[in-house]
Formats: sequence, C-alpha cells, structure tokens
Amino acid sequence: MTEIYSYSTLFSFAQQIFLKIGCTEKDAIIAAKSLLIADLRGVDSHGVARLSGYVRLWEAGRINPKPTIKIVHETPSTAVVDGDAGLGLVVAPFAMQVAIDKAKNVGTGWVSVKNSNHFGIAGSHAMMALQSDMIGIAMTNASALVAPTFSAERMLGTNPIAVAIPAGNEQPFVADLATTTAANGKLEILQRKHQNPPVGWVQTKTGEPSTDAGEIKKGGALLPLGGDREHGSHKGYALGSIVDIFSGILSGANYGPWVPPFPAYVPMPENMPGEGIGHFFGAMRIDAFRPADEFKFHMDKWIQRFSSSKTVEGQERVIIPGEPETTFEKERMKNGIPLVKAVAEDLEKLGQKFEIELKENRPVV
Amino acid sequence: MTEIYSYSTLFSFAQQIFLKIGCTEKDAIIAAKSLLIADLRGVDSHGVARLSGYVRLWEAGRINPKPTIKIVHETPSTAVVDGDAGLGLVVAPFAMQVAIDKAKNVGTGWVSVKNSNHFGIAGSHAMMALQSDMIGIAMTNASALVAPTFSAERMLGTNPIAVAIPAGNEQPFVADLATTTAANGKLEILQRKHQNPPVGWVQTKTGEPSTDAGEIKKGGALLPLGGDREHGSHKGYALGSIVDIFSGILSGANYGPWVPPFPAYVPMPENMPGEGIGHFFGAMRIDAFRPADEFKFHMDKWIQRFSSSKTVEGQERVIIPGEPETTFEKERMKNGIPLVKAVAEDLEKLGQKFEIELKENRPVV
Repeated sequence: MTEIYSYSTLFSFAQQIFLKIGCTEKDAIIAAKSLLIADLRGVDSHGVARLSGYVRLWEAGRINPKPTIKIVHETPSTAVVDGDAGLGLVVAPFAMQVAIDKAKNVGTGWVSVKNSNHFGIAGSHAMMALQSDMIGIAMTNASALVAPTFSAERMLGTNPIAVAIPAGNEQPFVADLATTTAANGKLEILQRKHQNPPVGWVQTKTGEPSTDAGEIKKGGALLPLGGDREHGSHKGYALGSIVDIFSGILSGANYGPWVPPFPAYVPMPENMPGEGIGHFFGAMRIDAFRPADEFKFHMDKWIQRFSSSKTVEGQERVIIPGEPETTFEKERMKNGIPLVKAVAEDLEKLGQKFEIELKENRPVV
Repeated sequence: MTEIYSYSTLFSFAQQIFLKIGCTEKDAIIAAKSLLIADLRGVDSHGVARLSGYVRLWEAGRINPKPTIKIVHETPSTAVVDGDAGLGLVVAPFAMQVAIDKAKNVGTGWVSVKNSNHFGIAGSHAMMALQSDMIGIAMTNASALVAPTFSAERMLGTNPIAVAIPAGNEQPFVADLATTTAANGKLEILQRKHQNPPVGWVQTKTGEPSTDAGEIKKGGALLPLGGDREHGSHKGYALGSIVDIFSGILSGANYGPWVPPFPAYVPMPENMPGEGIGHFFGAMRIDAFRPADEFKFHMDKWIQRFSSSKTVEGQERVIIPGEPETTFEKERMKNGIPLVKAVAEDLEKLGQKFEIELKENRPVV
C-alpha cells in the first residue's frame, strides 16, 4: 500500500527537518534536494525513507549541522575537501562544485573528500556536471557489508560508482551502480515480501552460499558484483576496493572495515585510521577533448544504436543506463512520489517530534 | 606440454619481428616490452601468442609501422592523441607518458586516444604511473563480442579497466579486469581442453544461456560482468559502455559495434564513425591529494588488513588485486616463460618467414 505525496510537499518537509536539526537555510535546501532526487529517480531506499536515519546520526552527535566545509589541499586539477562531519548531502555538492570549477580552468577536476557522512545517491552528484557539458563521476565508500572473494568477513561497503555523460537530443547516459551483485535495499524489499534472493547475492557468516534474504542480519555478507570467483567476483571486489581507496585513502577518511556505519545504533569501529566517510568526485570538460557538439552527435548515435539492437526473445528493448531513472523523474515530478505506508508513518512520527506537519497526502493508489 | 624460454630470448625475438615489419629501433623495443609484460605477468593470451596476429594486421595494411603519433587537442590536464594507425603497443605508452607529464604539472593527466590498434594488457600501461608515485588508469575499447543485458547482438568489446595504485612496503595494487564475466582467452583455454564454461559466461546468437565453450564461433556472445540481469549484468554492461565512450567517443575513434576486429581475416565493419580503436589513460599524482608517505602508510595498512581477513573454509588467503601477477612476474623473469607447444610452433613459423631464429629453448617441463 502506498500513499502519494508531491515533490514540493516532501521537499518542504525535508527542508524543515534539516532546519530543525540546525542546518543553515542554504544547506537545508541543498540537503533536501540531494535527498529528494533519489525519490524522484525511483531509488526509494535512498530518499526520504532515510530522513529519520540522518536525524538519528545527528542525535548521536555524529553529524555537524553547521560544518565549515573547506579545501585542505589542492593543485590546479585536484583538491582534498574536509567535510567537517557535515551531512554528506551537503558536503558532496560542495566538493563536486570544486571539481567542476577546476575543470573549467584546466580541463578536469578531481576531489577526494574526508570527514563526511552518507551522501544519498551517487548519481545525483555526478549529474551536476551535465549542465556544464562535462562528464561527472561520483563514488563513495560506506560501512562494511561486503565480503571480498574468499573472505568470510565484511570488508567493503556497497561502494557505488556513478558516471554521468551528456548527450545531444537523447537523454544523458547515467550509470549509478553499487559494486555488488545487488544493493542492500533490494534484500530488504525481498524480506518484506517474504521472498528469497538467488544464489550469488549473499553468503552466510562463515562464507557459505545462501538464499536467505535475512542473511545480513545474521552476520552474513553481500557479495561483490560477479557473485562467486567463477563468475568474476574478484572483479567486483577490485572495483569496490578502488572506490574505497580513491574515497578513503586519497583523502584521509576511514576505509575498509573502519568506515563508520549509517545506523546510529551500530557502534563505531575501533581504532579508526581516518576521519568520517570518504567520497571521490571527478568532472571532465567535454571540450577539453573535442568540440562538445561533435561529442554529442556521436553520443546520440551510440545511444540510438544500442537502443535499437536486436533483443533476446521476450525483451522489448536494450536499456540505456539512466533511462528508467529519467522516466521515473519526469513521471514523479508530475504525478507525485509514492511512499510505502511504513515510510509515510515514519515521516509523520518525525514530523510530530519536530512539530512539522506532513501535508497533502493524496488518495491511496 | 610447454616449452620454457627466457624473457630475454622472447624479448629479442619480438623486437626483431617488430624491426622486420618496419618499426624504428626505439619503437621495436617499446612494442616488445609492452607485449612481453603480458607473458611475464601470466596473461598468456595477450603476450607473444598474439605476435603473429599483429604481423597479420600489418600485412593487411591496418598497422602503420612508422606512425607520427601526436597530440591533436589539449588543455593543461587533458589531451587527445592520434595514434596514426600505429601499433597500440607503442601508441599506448606514448599517451600514458603524456598523462604522466600533465599530472606532474597540474596534479592529474587524462588522455583519450584515437586511430590506434590493440595495446596488449591494460595493466602494463597503468603501471607506468607507479614509478612516479602516481595512480595509473588505462582502458581500451575492442571489437564487439559482448551482448548488453537483453541484447542478442554483440555490441561491446571486453573493454578492460586497469587501475594501478602505489603502496609502501607492500606490492602495488594492480586491478586489470575485462568488464565481462570471463575474458575470451579463458573460453579458448576451455575449448582446447574440451571443457565447458558454467552458465553466465556466454549466450547463443539468439540470446539463450549456453555452456558451450565454442559459442562465440557460432555467432554467440560473451556476457557482461554479472552474467544475467538478476546478478547485475546491467552493471557490467554499464562499465563496458563507460570504457567504450571514454576511449572511443571522447577521442574520435570507433565505438560499439564499429570497433575494428583484431583478427586480420575478419572484415571491417561498414560505415565506421571514427578512426581505429580508442584508449583512455589517466595519471593522478598522489601528492596532489596528500603526502605520498602518508598515503603509502595507509595503503600498506589496507593491504595487510584485507590480506589477513578471515577466509571462507578451504581458502588460504584473500588475494590483493595484482598479487598473483606480481608473483608470476618475479618467477618468470627468473625461471623463464612457458609457452604451450602451439604458440612455440607459431613463433618458429614466424621466425622462418622473417629469417629470425628462436633460440634457447630450455627442456620441456
């Protein structure tokens, strides 16, 4: 059962919550925008469903609502940004803007971030580059839920990589992928439906293959993209590791099993070697390589050729990365965002706590 | 059955072959080095086993042995290099050096290459950055053998990504991965042994799952990393696409189904939209982010923690990307490179054709 809320209602609600926890007017808008883009694009696990989680992190003293976000090291094409324990939803757009500004000057910009928190969906930050005719890249490490190939221990987060590439008449290419077979949110959905995942998504706490959607809660682990060694899990493990190193070690953030957890009730790891969570951003100006109109002509051709390739029986069309999310975004901006009942109730409770009304609940669909 | 040759014997042989097809003294050395690093690192499919393939491309008029490789567009942190139809084995080190030089000046360097040919293993070019305390990145597109998720057509090459990251006392981290479940070379090995791959490596020409090691020759396709949609093949497809776009579209090379094939007997695609094969290289100076000694201290800590993580029963240790290849490199530099009989015979035939003797065949192992 779902309830429909307009974008503006949920935006305003999130904005007010961020104000209540002490964010500035400007940061509350930035944070609400970073959060809501997930709901718009159909990544329901990363949107307002997480709002109360961010509040709990603030209550636990792990989020600084008025951070002094600053560049602590830089060259013409690089920077390290210290997020001052701010909301990742605010720190990430700051850092991505630094990357874009550097790309304006010298062709590309690359920014590694320390002392941050969860930043919502990677794709939203990568997409900031599109309006400047740039390719945008965003990645982040996250608390350990993933077992490398041959490991029984959780060592890596789901460590997503997002790459946004402008096109001409076609919609932009936007890949945004966890470096695991499946994201944790998908397991939670299966659990709610009392369904089980196929082999290749999770393993038990001793490293045996499992098809139990509740395995993570029993100490098990998600598996790297590939699933097992025979199907290339060492590649997913390598990709997740690269994200961890670019985000955590280049910046001075935590890495591997020391990345702080999102749920405020989970204790912090011991002997942490860095500060907060790490991100990594890149921006490449298209015309630092070739004229943007030429590039876009060929991107359109690429997209049209891939879209029209012959399909496997029963499949209508080959999908371009980002296409379903762009469709969601248009549709939900117009017709509203459906929230499952548990999420709507969670927001109402949050509203009561801070004396903010969650208005305009449209009829149940 | 294998025969053992020393590195210097095979190096000298390859160098002489490259001289015979018209390369300069300097380029023959560079090409032989790029080729042999594959044999040293245990990637037998990409080393001297391919030498006669390169010669056949030259015979077909598709390789220019004396190219004028040059920068055709640049900014302080970027360049596009025109390989002038040269050997990728020579064009790639040139372009990677441009990236490294730019990183020396402005922190990072990013080079997209058009009008090139196959460049050997991606890892060898990425590793060029290590000696300058830089992170190196290398990728290339290749002729279409891979079907995107839901596609029955081959649209992408195996499009590898390599990332080399320096450490302190530990060996460097070197990931070098095709964006498919398994590389084509692994299928060929199974075919030779009359064995079959598991489901998830290949599909038939109509897109049905297959376990036939000979499927590619029957018009089938390799599958993107993930194998099927349920196991994240759309992620492998997205990664292969990013490699294709960075290598082909940023530079003005061919892309997607239009990338020229390696076997000289395969006809060129029609209506090609670009020039030759494309590559993409990156170099990031560690101290453009933080002092190199600090970074290396934490890389060592990362490697030690991952290496010592608790394993799944029956597995001795979690392997760091690049570790097996580094072990191979040391061992084979010392004890020689084993060639299967078919490869040794192929080299001998090639030697006869060009009147070069393949000497120093040590006893059969």
